[in-house]
Amino acid sequence: MSRPTITLTTDFGISDAYVAAMKGVILSICANATIVDVSHEIERHNVTEAAYVLASASEYYPSGTVHVAVVDPGVGSSRRALILQTPRGTYVSPDNGTLTHILNECGACITNTESRMSSEMVEVPEGCRAFHLDKPEYWLPNVTRTFHGRDIFAPTAARLADGVPASDLGSPVHSMVCLPTPSFHSAENTTTGVVVHIDTYGNLITNIPPEATQDNPEIRISGHVIRGLSESYADATGDLLAIIGSRSTLEIAVGEGDARTFLNASIGDRVVVERRGTNPRPCRD
Amino acid sequence: MSRPTITLTTDFGISDAYVAAMKGVILSICANATIVDVSHEIERHNVTEAAYVLASASEYYPSGTVHVAVVDPGVGSSRRALILQTPRGTYVSPDNGTLTHILNECGACITNTESRMSSEMVEVPEGCRAFHLDKPEYWLPNVTRTFHGRDIFAPTAARLADGVPASDLGSPVHSMVCLPTPSFHSAENTTTGVVVHIDTYGNLITNIPPEATQDNPEIRISGHVIRGLSESYADATGDLLAIIGSRSTLEIAVGEGDARTFLNASIGDRVVVERRGTNPRPCRD
Amino acid sequence: MSRPTITLTTDFGISDAYVAAMKGVILSICANATIVDVSHEIERHNVTEAAYVLASASEYYPSGTVHVAVVDPGVGSSRRALILQTPRGTYVSPDNGTLTHILNECGACITNTESRMSSEMVEVPEGCRAFHLDKPEYWLPNVTRTFHGRDIFAPTAARLADGVPASDLGSPVHSMVCLPTPSFHSAENTTTGVVVHIDTYGNLITNIPPEATQDNPEIRISGHVIRGLSESYADATGDLLAIIGSRSTLEIAVGEGDARTFLNASIGDRVVVERRGTNPRPCRD
Repeated sequence: MSRPTITLTTDFGISDAYVAAMKGVILSICANATIVDVSHEIERHNVTEAAYVLASASEYYPSGTVHVAVVDPGVGSSRRALILQTPRGTYVSPDNGTLTHILNECGACITNTESRMSSEMVEVPEGCRAFHLDKPEYWLPNVTRTFHGRDIFAPTAARLADGVPASDLGSPVHSMVCLPTPSFHSAENTTTGVVVHIDTYGNLITNIPPEATQDNPEIRISGHVIRGLSESYADATGDLLAIIGSRSTLEIAVGEGDARTFLNASIGDRVVVERRGTNPRPCRD
Repeated sequence: MSRPTITLTTDFGISDAYVAAMKGVILSICANATIVDVSHEIERHNVTEAAYVLASASEYYPSGTVHVAVVDPGVGSSRRALILQTPRGTYVSPDNGTLTHILNECGACITNTESRMSSEMVEVPEGCRAFHLDKPEYWLPNVTRTFHGRDIFAPTAARLADGVPASDLGSPVHSMVCLPTPSFHSAENTTTGVVVHIDTYGNLITNIPPEATQDNPEIRISGHVIRGLSESYADATGDLLAIIGSRSTLEIAVGEGDARTFLNASIGDRVVVERRGTNPRPCRD
Repeated sequence: MSRPTITLTTDFGISDAYVAAMKGVILSICANATIVDVSHEIERHNVTEAAYVLASASEYYPSGTVHVAVVDPGVGSSRRALILQTPRGTYVSPDNGTLTHILNECGACITNTESRMSSEMVEVPEGCRAFHLDKPEYWLPNVTRTFHGRDIFAPTAARLADGVPASDLGSPVHSMVCLPTPSFHSAENTTTGVVVHIDTYGNLITNIPPEATQDNPEIRISGHVIRGLSESYADATGDLLAIIGSRSTLEIAVGEGDARTFLNASIGDRVVVERRGTNPRPCRD
């Protein structure tokens, strides 16, 4: 029999015993689990970053995997704890938007407006099921106010990995909190999107799809202009470049450098792609 | 058959090959071990921090787990290397105080005085057994002067996980080094304790038990006064709060903030709790 | 049956989803793999450091282990992706010098001159076999330009762990890129070497073997003189010391301190050992 896999995404850091305590709880319940760290270096309380990183990793796991994501500023408050079952995996998380991209990719109707700034309740899409964790008999006997990762989420994940049905662990719910998800906009020869993630190298990952970058593109960000796409980072050592990145979206980078620093960039920065056609017009910067 | 679990707690960091070398040694001896990192980011040579983190994590593991803890400023000197078997797990560590809290929880008679500043030899308590690692035939063939984690502790842990009895790996010893363990003191309506750990968020974990915080408590630390306990961190965003934390002791935190920075706090800082009764007296800060 | 082990060495950091995506790909192909992190904190694009760390760790693994090392500034360019099979393990890496020390230890004829500054092509030594990964049917269906760790190296490692012969995964090659590997030089009573690695503690690891440090040695580095070898770091708290380190070469350290800072040291710094014989001459610093 294949060993069940559980992944962990948190903002707990790696110096304290917090992550190890979760793993001890998991292995006490499901001794043959394979536990994989996605990241414990999510910026503290940054649910938006957790949502992005979780989606980027979990896409590559077998569908039987249980993904636990605990970036949980509301621990101990009235925010719910949830299981979300989807065709690509099972997720265990506080109901705070961490699962936004998972829901989006499963077809949930999330309002995609650049202007919306607050979270919203979104219906669980067809093909998915969600459960509110309201059965304390499956948790650690003493649930503390400050560490539901260990006391509730870890035992829940371990029981799922051990074969307990999600419907035993909670009551069905039909909507969940989603974060604002910025969309891109296309008009004639121009597409406008935003930086949605900045990685550890300072590469700027945008939400602009490859189709929008065809046909002799000119990319503009923060007053800079990049002409055409690079084939590799090594194409433009020390210079700004645009490339289709590992999430299959437009990425702005500096060859062997750091585009975040170079552009003083932030999440949400606007990126414009103009498709100039096969006969590029003469242009001045 | 269940796979044996080995946990690792060190100050080796995560950029070098040190931890991976230990894991290679373990897997070479016990191929089906599950190896879990507790922390490799213990402050360099900080045995007190290692002792706290190890105890915080190991409590949640099955009793068959082998816990290796190597924060070892005395590597290569005459300090002993030990195995400690307890009802809650087996520990492998230099004899330098790393196992203080484990021994304490197993009933060892550790002198608990706030004033004592140096380590002491403590008898191994009933129900536990300790062994001095003095059988080089179980180690790597070449033991270096600087890396007993790889050369002695890792092979010892792997052999324990593989079923070799501890009594084959060393000779019995009856006392071990323990660190000073600060106690709390109660007098009438007041309990005085100290900060024993500061976590990655800057939360201050004290040694004051929940019983001491009942009955309308007022908490004082570094000239600040906190009235009552919070139910969650989210109760007091940006403000000092007191809460019963994940180790079931009083914790001082700042909601979505950092109490260490806020209070310029250190391990050992004094915390006083006054139980003011059901009719709180009027008071001024 | 024993579970196959795959190790990972990268400069991807631990905050992003990059490493976890690789692990998901591996577990999707080879569900029972044990995956071990060697380091993801290699300095960005520092192939020299990756080569050192990989060799330091992989030496301690069973010979059936698959070691993946992806520090890959040339991702997406024309640099080749390789498998190297050796008697001590199988390696998967870009052809950029990461495997230099492995080849060296397997008897490859690498030019060892202090002066050579650039990489060179070196013949794959007897007893080893190398393959150029040129069979896309074994990779992820969509290979991106920026993340061959996930798209090519991870699936290749997983297939090797799963029992696919290396010769199915690529075409034989007979030479590989190697980095300059500084040698030490002995003349009469003096040996001159260099610092080849600086670890997380600031210890300076040299390429000088223990034989060169016998017979009343005097060690000189950056204008400082150290007389004799220490038996342990604890021998010289706060002071410069010389010791035979965990890689069985001469190491310069500061007891409970940081020799890198103390000496403002860098990789490549010259270290001279003079063997002064059993009757040390009187000397002044």
